[in-house]
Amino acid sequence: MQSSIFKIGTKASPAHFTGPAFVNLLVADSRGVYNATVYDVKFEPGARNNWHSHPQGQILLCTGGVGYYQESGQPPRRLEKGDVVEIPPNARHWHGAAPDCSFTHIGITPNANRGPTEWHDPVTYEEYRLVAKPAF
Amino acid sequence: MQSSIFKIGTKASPAHFTGPAFVNLLVADSRGVYNATVYDVKFEPGARNNWHSHPQGQILLCTGGVGYYQESGQPPRRLEKGDVVEIPPNARHWHGAAPDCSFTHIGITPNANRGPTEWHDPVTYEEYRLVAKPAF
Repeated sequence: MQSSIFKIGTKASPAHFTGPAFVNLLVADSRGVYNATVYDVKFEPGARNNWHSHPQGQILLCTGGVGYYQESGQPPRRLEKGDVVEIPPNARHWHGAAPDCSFTHIGITPNANRGPTEWHDPVTYEEYRLVAKPAF
Repeated sequence: MQSSIFKIGTKASPAHFTGPAFVNLLVADSRGVYNATVYDVKFEPGARNNWHSHPQGQILLCTGGVGYYQESGQPPRRLEKGDVVEIPPNARHWHGAAPDCSFTHIGITPNANRGPTEWHDPVTYEEYRLVAKPAF
């Protein structure tokens, strides 16, 4: 099965995700040549990751479906194929699929030597339902 | 016009490419937050870049069509949607489309502060025609 471009990955940890999502690690960079990791993530409808932050920032390249990105204190941003998200270092945020549509993005974590992702609480239903009435 | 996921970019410099190719700079990283640049490249059939090398290495994510990657001294490697190429730092190489099919890839240049791409000679017709009879 394909996500949209790449083969579907392994199921993401329920400790960090609400609903089914699948992660295909495209570049593990285990020898640190690129100081970056690259991965493809497919979220089933309604699935999203917990609030989290990256000390090194993150880049999302949206490749299919409809999804959302939200930074703490900001309205959700609707995403579709061709959209690019530049997530600043240490910005508390989440991303995931629309309630009624799957969503696929490539993720790039540069500056990998700055340390691991910091995971926080799940996105509650009350927070997630805002995507059904976005402020734009 | 779309390349496959992203809008078609601007025409690549004929100083570094043979045949028409288009580059859409997705993440310029002008402030150096990510220490990486990300771009989408569409090669028309037969188009390819010159032999070149990156002091920081490069990652290619193939998103559509059929293309080739060749490292100096190696046979050409056929590429299609879903293939990932990890190009080592300073490896002399070229990439481009098949003779009869366009090709699109996302490119990631990590460790951008290690310096610019080093450009060499064009891929000659005698070199390029090897893709029509690959060694596999």
